[in-house]
Amino acid sequence: MRETQIIDRIRTLALETPHPPQLITGIGDDCAVFRPDAREDLVFTTDFTIEGRHFLKQTHTAFDVGYVALARSLSDLAAMGAAPVFCLVSLAVPPGLETRWLPRFYRGLLSMARASGMALAGGDLASADRIVADVMCCGRVPRGKALVRSGAKPGDSIYVTGSLGSSALGLATCRGAAWKRHLRPQPRLAPGLALRNIPATAAMDLSDGLSLDLQRLCRESGVAADLTGDLPLAKGATLEQALHGGEDYELLFTASAKVRDRLAGIPVTRIGTIRRGAAGQVTFRGTPLEPLAFDHFVRSSAAKRRGHSL
Amino acid sequence: MRETQIIDRIRTLALETPHPPQLITGIGDDCAVFRPDAREDLVFTTDFTIEGRHFLKQTHTAFDVGYVALARSLSDLAAMGAAPVFCLVSLAVPPGLETRWLPRFYRGLLSMARASGMALAGGDLASADRIVADVMCCGRVPRGKALVRSGAKPGDSIYVTGSLGSSALGLATCRGAAWKRHLRPQPRLAPGLALRNIPATAAMDLSDGLSLDLQRLCRESGVAADLTGDLPLAKGATLEQALHGGEDYELLFTASAKVRDRLAGIPVTRIGTIRRGAAGQVTFRGTPLEPLAFDHFVRSSAAKRRGHSL
Repeated sequence: MRETQIIDRIRTLALETPHPPQLITGIGDDCAVFRPDAREDLVFTTDFTIEGRHFLKQTHTAFDVGYVALARSLSDLAAMGAAPVFCLVSLAVPPGLETRWLPRFYRGLLSMARASGMALAGGDLASADRIVADVMCCGRVPRGKALVRSGAKPGDSIYVTGSLGSSALGLATCRGAAWKRHLRPQPRLAPGLALRNIPATAAMDLSDGLSLDLQRLCRESGVAADLTGDLPLAKGATLEQALHGGEDYELLFTASAKVRDRLAGIPVTRIGTIRRGAAGQVTFRGTPLEPLAFDHFVRSSAAKRRGHSL
Repeated sequence: MRETQIIDRIRTLALETPHPPQLITGIGDDCAVFRPDAREDLVFTTDFTIEGRHFLKQTHTAFDVGYVALARSLSDLAAMGAAPVFCLVSLAVPPGLETRWLPRFYRGLLSMARASGMALAGGDLASADRIVADVMCCGRVPRGKALVRSGAKPGDSIYVTGSLGSSALGLATCRGAAWKRHLRPQPRLAPGLALRNIPATAAMDLSDGLSLDLQRLCRESGVAADLTGDLPLAKGATLEQALHGGEDYELLFTASAKVRDRLAGIPVTRIGTIRRGAAGQVTFRGTPLEPLAFDHFVRSSAAKRRGHSL
């Protein structure tokens, strides 16, 4: 069973629950969007970071894990054009890790929290056989301005921030700038805020790889996409790593207007065009592009180490 | 290292993060309290439900696990006097469980969601060696009316809803009404709402056992407590189970005014008095009461199966 099918099924089941009018966006986007009786909307996201899937104790320090656990959720806020407000951190560790590993995890997480202006507001603490962190982030965005995945229109251009493939390259080599980039991803918060003013018609973050994530964006928007082939490859990265490697945490977005070469200091590259067609169909240089990026429940996935937001 | 020490340490570290003025209550209560520019405050909580700690695949169906995973977080909303709004569900399961186990988990969770008027708004999905669920709940409460742990004053009476020890009894026997109660805890949402009008001076839910949870409430309020010994024991439960057994999910609260015998149809019993004294000191029939209830990181704990909210 493919992850997309599982999520479609959960989404159908979720239709049976009450739908408060304040819940603007539910399952299917980077974040849920909630509208209090106020000028700002609140967005919410949660992301697992699991030992053996997203990191290994041998290669990642406790500080690294804490940093990445928060960065992954912050990247979802960036994709909504939201500013960070607070997070809740659920952490389960094997007995014995609580004295040294646990405080270092929090130091890593809190260094990312400070850098992004986010408060640690609570969470849960438990023991388990393997380390599991689940980080919930709340962000704020002016009323009605959250960047969703579902707004891409035929004729829109497709853009990405930064470069692609460095995290996959880092994971393959475990050294150099690419490995550092894998350990210390930079959530694109400032470019995300800038996207609200362009405005982007749709946006998401690249967590599972361009081929799968672009398919998801197109499915939500009910459109197809053509990639021209001009991808901003990270130094040393292969085309495969740029197309299917995950955890780059760059922003993927669409816009009808022309977009500048840089947003908040980060390079932006036009990589293709949205068109009419079967929802989710993507071509690369004219040939259908298979989503070979990460699918948590299919063993032939290109990578095995990520999850997928509902 | 005791859990209380670990949490105190995390709390100290968290002081280094920004503290937005909208964050009214952070680490140390059942929920974080957030104040949008609106008439209502929002409260947030997150709770792990972990295979081998909180449940066993042999004794708990997927439906049971989904039901309890949400009930545990809802109980925290009840303890704040909040009404449920939406939840985010993070679920990691071993490959192979996604076709049958996973939809049944969601059916259990959504039956609880429907019963409590709560929407499923998103979450995360991943694979892992053992099942891990983390459920984040958002609730709403009129501005400034959230019931915190820190308001108990010397002279206040101490109360509990319902009866104590049934979940521990059920866990010991795995049969009868007590076992059903263990599998299907009822978050005290309606009594929680009623507590806002009394008003309760402090409130929390009994998740880890009266002896430990009352100590926590007293620590947050900077007071001590005397239990008279008149505990509302569940049918068949021992005094030990009522004092130290966890997962009853009843409400523990304090009030300066006299409280009626029932709140929203649920019996209420006066069990003691708040007094001046060392913060967190509790006596039972005049003798110091050790918090023998669950501590996740001390092996001599009475139970091994629960966690603790920050």
